[in-house]
Amino acid sequence: MTGKFEPLDSGTIPRFAGLPTFMRLPVAEPAEVDIAIIGLPFDLGTTNRAGTRHGPRELRNQSSLMRRVHHVTGLSPYDRARVADCGDVIIDPFDLMRSLDLITAHYAGVRTAGALPLTAGGDHLISLPILRGLASDGPVGLIQFDAHSDTYDTFFNGSRYTHGTPFRRAIEEGLVDPKRFVQVGLRGAISDAGNYDYARDVGVRIIFIEEFIERGVADVMAEVRAIVGDQKTYVTFDIDGIDPSQAPGTGTPEIGGFSTREAQAMVRLLDGLNIIGADLVEVAPPFDPSGLTALTGATIMFELLCVLAGVVETKGKL
Amino acid sequence: MTGKFEPLDSGTIPRFAGLPTFMRLPVAEPAEVDIAIIGLPFDLGTTNRAGTRHGPRELRNQSSLMRRVHHVTGLSPYDRARVADCGDVIIDPFDLMRSLDLITAHYAGVRTAGALPLTAGGDHLISLPILRGLASDGPVGLIQFDAHSDTYDTFFNGSRYTHGTPFRRAIEEGLVDPKRFVQVGLRGAISDAGNYDYARDVGVRIIFIEEFIERGVADVMAEVRAIVGDQKTYVTFDIDGIDPSQAPGTGTPEIGGFSTREAQAMVRLLDGLNIIGADLVEVAPPFDPSGLTALTGATIMFELLCVLAGVVETKGKL
Amino acid sequence: MTGKFEPLDSGTIPRFAGLPTFMRLPVAEPAEVDIAIIGLPFDLGTTNRAGTRHGPRELRNQSSLMRRVHHVTGLSPYDRARVADCGDVIIDPFDLMRSLDLITAHYAGVRTAGALPLTAGGDHLISLPILRGLASDGPVGLIQFDAHSDTYDTFFNGSRYTHGTPFRRAIEEGLVDPKRFVQVGLRGAISDAGNYDYARDVGVRIIFIEEFIERGVADVMAEVRAIVGDQKTYVTFDIDGIDPSQAPGTGTPEIGGFSTREAQAMVRLLDGLNIIGADLVEVAPPFDPSGLTALTGATIMFELLCVLAGVVETKGKL
Amino acid sequence: MTGKFEPLDSGTIPRFAGLPTFMRLPVAEPAEVDIAIIGLPFDLGTTNRAGTRHGPRELRNQSSLMRRVHHVTGLSPYDRARVADCGDVIIDPFDLMRSLDLITAHYAGVRTAGALPLTAGGDHLISLPILRGLASDGPVGLIQFDAHSDTYDTFFNGSRYTHGTPFRRAIEEGLVDPKRFVQVGLRGAISDAGNYDYARDVGVRIIFIEEFIERGVADVMAEVRAIVGDQKTYVTFDIDGIDPSQAPGTGTPEIGGFSTREAQAMVRLLDGLNIIGADLVEVAPPFDPSGLTALTGATIMFELLCVLAGVVETKGKL
Amino acid sequence: MTGKFEPLDSGTIPRFAGLPTFMRLPVAEPAEVDIAIIGLPFDLGTTNRAGTRHGPRELRNQSSLMRRVHHVTGLSPYDRARVADCGDVIIDPFDLMRSLDLITAHYAGVRTAGALPLTAGGDHLISLPILRGLASDGPVGLIQFDAHSDTYDTFFNGSRYTHGTPFRRAIEEGLVDPKRFVQVGLRGAISDAGNYDYARDVGVRIIFIEEFIERGVADVMAEVRAIVGDQKTYVTFDIDGIDPSQAPGTGTPEIGGFSTREAQAMVRLLDGLNIIGADLVEVAPPFDPSGLTALTGATIMFELLCVLAGVVETKGKL
Amino acid sequence: MTGKFEPLDSGTIPRFAGLPTFMRLPVAEPAEVDIAIIGLPFDLGTTNRAGTRHGPRELRNQSSLMRRVHHVTGLSPYDRARVADCGDVIIDPFDLMRSLDLITAHYAGVRTAGALPLTAGGDHLISLPILRGLASDGPVGLIQFDAHSDTYDTFFNGSRYTHGTPFRRAIEEGLVDPKRFVQVGLRGAISDAGNYDYARDVGVRIIFIEEFIERGVADVMAEVRAIVGDQKTYVTFDIDGIDPSQAPGTGTPEIGGFSTREAQAMVRLLDGLNIIGADLVEVAPPFDPSGLTALTGATIMFELLCVLAGVVETKGKL
Repeated sequence: MTGKFEPLDSGTIPRFAGLPTFMRLPVAEPAEVDIAIIGLPFDLGTTNRAGTRHGPRELRNQSSLMRRVHHVTGLSPYDRARVADCGDVIIDPFDLMRSLDLITAHYAGVRTAGALPLTAGGDHLISLPILRGLASDGPVGLIQFDAHSDTYDTFFNGSRYTHGTPFRRAIEEGLVDPKRFVQVGLRGAISDAGNYDYARDVGVRIIFIEEFIERGVADVMAEVRAIVGDQKTYVTFDIDGIDPSQAPGTGTPEIGGFSTREAQAMVRLLDGLNIIGADLVEVAPPFDPSGLTALTGATIMFELLCVLAGVVETKGKL
Repeated sequence: MTGKFEPLDSGTIPRFAGLPTFMRLPVAEPAEVDIAIIGLPFDLGTTNRAGTRHGPRELRNQSSLMRRVHHVTGLSPYDRARVADCGDVIIDPFDLMRSLDLITAHYAGVRTAGALPLTAGGDHLISLPILRGLASDGPVGLIQFDAHSDTYDTFFNGSRYTHGTPFRRAIEEGLVDPKRFVQVGLRGAISDAGNYDYARDVGVRIIFIEEFIERGVADVMAEVRAIVGDQKTYVTFDIDGIDPSQAPGTGTPEIGGFSTREAQAMVRLLDGLNIIGADLVEVAPPFDPSGLTALTGATIMFELLCVLAGVVETKGKL
Repeated sequence: MTGKFEPLDSGTIPRFAGLPTFMRLPVAEPAEVDIAIIGLPFDLGTTNRAGTRHGPRELRNQSSLMRRVHHVTGLSPYDRARVADCGDVIIDPFDLMRSLDLITAHYAGVRTAGALPLTAGGDHLISLPILRGLASDGPVGLIQFDAHSDTYDTFFNGSRYTHGTPFRRAIEEGLVDPKRFVQVGLRGAISDAGNYDYARDVGVRIIFIEEFIERGVADVMAEVRAIVGDQKTYVTFDIDGIDPSQAPGTGTPEIGGFSTREAQAMVRLLDGLNIIGADLVEVAPPFDPSGLTALTGATIMFELLCVLAGVVETKGKL
Repeated sequence: MTGKFEPLDSGTIPRFAGLPTFMRLPVAEPAEVDIAIIGLPFDLGTTNRAGTRHGPRELRNQSSLMRRVHHVTGLSPYDRARVADCGDVIIDPFDLMRSLDLITAHYAGVRTAGALPLTAGGDHLISLPILRGLASDGPVGLIQFDAHSDTYDTFFNGSRYTHGTPFRRAIEEGLVDPKRFVQVGLRGAISDAGNYDYARDVGVRIIFIEEFIERGVADVMAEVRAIVGDQKTYVTFDIDGIDPSQAPGTGTPEIGGFSTREAQAMVRLLDGLNIIGADLVEVAPPFDPSGLTALTGATIMFELLCVLAGVVETKGKL
Repeated sequence: MTGKFEPLDSGTIPRFAGLPTFMRLPVAEPAEVDIAIIGLPFDLGTTNRAGTRHGPRELRNQSSLMRRVHHVTGLSPYDRARVADCGDVIIDPFDLMRSLDLITAHYAGVRTAGALPLTAGGDHLISLPILRGLASDGPVGLIQFDAHSDTYDTFFNGSRYTHGTPFRRAIEEGLVDPKRFVQVGLRGAISDAGNYDYARDVGVRIIFIEEFIERGVADVMAEVRAIVGDQKTYVTFDIDGIDPSQAPGTGTPEIGGFSTREAQAMVRLLDGLNIIGADLVEVAPPFDPSGLTALTGATIMFELLCVLAGVVETKGKL
Repeated sequence: MTGKFEPLDSGTIPRFAGLPTFMRLPVAEPAEVDIAIIGLPFDLGTTNRAGTRHGPRELRNQSSLMRRVHHVTGLSPYDRARVADCGDVIIDPFDLMRSLDLITAHYAGVRTAGALPLTAGGDHLISLPILRGLASDGPVGLIQFDAHSDTYDTFFNGSRYTHGTPFRRAIEEGLVDPKRFVQVGLRGAISDAGNYDYARDVGVRIIFIEEFIERGVADVMAEVRAIVGDQKTYVTFDIDGIDPSQAPGTGTPEIGGFSTREAQAMVRLLDGLNIIGADLVEVAPPFDPSGLTALTGATIMFELLCVLAGVVETKGKL
């Protein structure tokens, strides 16, 4: 049934051959598939070390190493859903606000087309226009894996749209229900003692890395699942949530993060939630000489894809 | 007329966005175009440092930096010919001889389709099966830019098909006319004093780098043009002909090579010859930490493309 | 007299020690010195590969290798003028237009303070606000060493302020006299055949790399000097004018450029001109794994500094 | 007694000096020693990213950092056994099948010479001819630390000898007893749901990373020891079993692997088993910019050497 | 009160701008502050891979990523103490003994000035002259996080002052009380079985990594605190104590080390001890292509700074 | 006759296999050969960026790419002389003066053994003890290819033995005849205007890069040959004489240097001089991510070897 949307067979076509699409999948339009993998080359929201504009390309490159069937479940996402590389969102590198609108419109189109979007960023600001495109009919739940809260108010003379502010805006705009919003893995020094105040005041649940280490994956994820419940939920995975030894190529690295083992275990425990889309952000190839960050990112994308395929299998074409 | 086969407009779609096809061109079949740019990921002919199997991908990546119009001639190859990325030749990484046959068949098909092939290698052995595919009806002339002669007989217990032997085989098989075969840029120590004997004995003209430096580009290229005359000629450009400061990422670097200025000037002086195809070989990305080799290779490919477009304009669709 | 503004003595304080100021100079205000070396970390004008925001820091780092006395003239710029590291211009990474105004104001202040500015960029758009700050009382001459003309009109939906457009704006705004504007080293394919039309139409003299190679440094520089004459002139040096083998770390590399030998010879032949400031732009450290680009840039800055010191010696404090 | 076979004394000869033999040991023939450390530069079995042909050299380089005495046991392998660098096996880079025969013959010779081989690969296919050389008189037990099962049947048009197939061949050829074969650390997506079927059907015990994490080193290793018992056993350690943050330079990295702490603990728990040889494979230096992979590999080799020295002490010269 | 000694505000001055002082702090003299952050570029004690002379500069660079307030305590060290970048100690690269004296004198001055020193090395030998400067009135306690004991006697023809010997000298000179000296994290093979004998004989408590793993951070740190008690104690953190996946850029890496999580947790548990200074040593940038080691080092320095700020708050200006 | 001293045959033993001796030659004692290639891992004379202690190893690694027969002369040095890798000189990394004595004694031994030494450094200070060992019976001529004069008097509190001072010492000690001493390629700013005074005063001929560019290789080398005449002459080649684009991995790079073409041409024109030894110094692998510097160095060593072989052929065993 989904035969048209299979990765290239690595036993016939070597992994080093062929155009590097996501997961070696065909290129298609969102309307043709159940899950649309989308590149979003954008770093206009970055305060310090830019470079995530090159993220989608390297994620595609490293995704050539991915295979078909999850070894724990024995299931292939390509048997459960139609999946394709739906290309890049084209932004305007000289106009942040216009770019946000272009992204919003793009994701509104993906939603209309009935596909679940799995996005490769791009800096973390992209989650805001993605949510604008997907959540226009009411706030959704949000699960955020990250080193940073990204709920600051403004930077630099009042800039409201940066990769440190998307989720404050999303709450203010009614896109995300702060009571169904949970952040896992936060750590690292902050600029001011009050940096987490807004999030806490509106009801966001912050699970710092120290609490995470204390409690472990299973206990934390049980709480995460309880927080978002069975209503619509978006998942955002900032690669800097993972330890910089396993993901050095990012603009704002913080030591002491998740191991990839923990990250994989957490994503697997998203299974069965009512997920409307997911993104993997902040991969900055210019700071990734070994390519490990993009490999880690591509593998997390595969894990997210398997979860999304479960959603499709359960709910059918949106 | 050629509008369908234009590179993406970098004033609208940023260079960092979109799938990295050659020159940001559309993907098409050889039959649809006048010039087929083809990737040939292959390094089974390599004696020492492998890695050219990853060459086409990085050449595509760096070719995102290329533009449309040649600044010296003021001409765009895309106005003169239909050009597309015609994908990769799929080889068998465990069977050298079968791979040579697969390549031969692929290029015979390109020839039948009426397109001039511009190939991104791959190690230098690929020129042999390409010539088998293109020159089946009689020997052609050959212009080789290179640090090495590649006319050895055998390696390692009698291996006849390696990246050090393709042109001896090509002469033996009647694919290349040794009287119309010229090698430019040779240099570097050799394994035995007799390494150049075969080439000289059959009439190949070798222009060592020392002679090249002495005479200069214009004089040397006048002789090159005279040697091949107006009959069918193939062009092969080994990136190791260029100095390793400008092309470090290759398996057999030799210091003291062409500058890129000289290389560009030489390729431009191929204009008007009766060229039936060209290749750019030996880019090995694992040895190219800065990406400069692939950038140099992609730019030489653009120069070769401009020459091929002139052939198309003169002769029409093959 | 200038003893206060001497580099740290490398025979006493090792080059690896101490804060990496430009040329190991003291930090001071423009009003205290004759020549102000200024960092301008800015890449909001970049269309493709960003990273020049990190340029000033790496240029400072590599400038630790610089010494005091020019070996050809036997003169030290520090004997001829008071020179200091005058810090960085602080820009707003989320507001291009505001950043241009901040830069303009900063350089107007430098001008008022009576110092000649030597700027380490930053992408090439910075030359526009620098000129706004320096040339407010009438157009100046301009000598540009570069691979690109940077006289495009707009990019991406009409963006008028990018690193491809500063000199068109500067002419339109009356900051630069196009008749006294010369560009040296241009090369590389262009987006459209008409890309150089504007510059030519208004009288800019373009010396392509091919003409430069043909004529040589001395002849070209004689013409350059004649074009700008003895009136006020600004000098802008884009590191991508130099061949990428000697300056790989830049956003838009073009093979076939100046050698550093040629670049040094050209800058030395600026001696005696009426120069009001200079910049060295487009060093992008994330693409410079060996640090060579910043070393090349820092050395060109030293050459420019020697020329500026000659201006000071001739004209005294502005 | 073993004084002749001591590493260079790093308190007299600096670690940066001298030829980089394994562990800074003398070069000798297998017949002279109890344990022969052997380089096997070979990557003809690699399906995607080659480069392990350069593994032995970098493992030798990094092994210059190794010391003499294990800090946990307080024992030096050089006090317990005669150990030397016995050079490289010479293969034929253009003939996979002939190379396998050359390796088989080489290890048969090592066996005849009475030395235990500790091999530095090379891709994982080398374990097959090593086993052919060592296990010609009946199947042995096998302990495999790895991310992948390497028990596929064929690749690419029926290729039976690749780095994904050695252990299926070894079972089919009666070299390995599948009931005494245990694989630890497997993980990562697979090509088809049936990829592990063969191994399971013939009785191989697969311990996935998830089970390993759940149970811990001690429990898993108790089972491993029980499976192989006190009969002859070979140990193969694929560096990609270790997490790519600690071993990035390998052709088929999989995130979420062993930590080096776990790897060291597991190897130490091999002590006392009846081990006839060991290998460390899949170190690919072209993908290891920091050298960490070879350092990790060299340290695991030292741990394996200590275990082998215990075998020698117990059993005497073979 | 401490307003003068605040890091640059990253919401106003981008992190990529400004001179890279430690933590983006002002430059000041020790007498002006409570805590003096000092660079000590020195690697004359290194036996193998040098490069720590470049450590302070890269630690400063990466410290641009640090923020103000500790996310666990909610406290800012800059609210609790006056902190500044007090520059580098200038050593003599051709005279080891003279350099030790220069360092001793420098730290005696810091002590006299009443500031607690936090030092960025430099190789581990620097701890000896620092202790000479700080502990001239009687032995202090010492907490050492490290892979190596550094209590060897001599190297190379009797050299007594190397990065493998500082703490033996410190005990012999009465600077450190061996009964109040604890080493955590030791591992890796040793040159001779007796390498730890001296330390054990004089009463140093060695906690090997294996014991650390077994017991965990909390239990180990309880013992550490008990050992040093409430008397004066110095803290030395060798970056090679941390696993090389998180700190590859060091001269003598040992796999199997602390995770950064564990390192951070341990440093936080130093809170409340009577600490008279701390150092972070052995960061060698030439072996750190990704910059991760310096980032890890800078973050550990921030953790140490927070502990020192607690000391200041408790005890006031020394 | 010289069959015993041949490089490994790369048509039988792949270049990636075998221990990386210089030029893949056998290891032997100086007394057994005519030309002894010697590694001298030493960087105690370095003022800024160390790392040449690792030079010999990387030069050996890259020399695996060298071949047997010079392509211009058609001669093999191995047919003209017995050549071997004679290992490393062992120095004391904690005692500069003792190391100089160890080196002196070593080269006196080489001289007594009757072999011409070709040395791979090491920083440039090594030329001094080499000359002490070779020139004990009277001053020799000296040809120096370099960016720097290395005739400073002292550094840092009077240090007389650094890589900036060897040739002043050599003249003072009567090892070099300043009238037969020529330096080619000097360039770059200097610390003080008088830095070249000593050299000029005693009669050293300095040919700056500007004069070299003006006159060309042939003219310069004619003068060089005339200066040293037919008496005993030593040749020292500092890799920083070559442009940093072709030799970036060195401690004191200066842009604008020799091209490798020019360097090769100059070395070839040493043919027939009465040369008693040669060295290639200042290759610093930690600053050479692509390995190009060591490749350039190894190739220059091969060129020097060919010249030395001519000396042997003419004069026989010393």
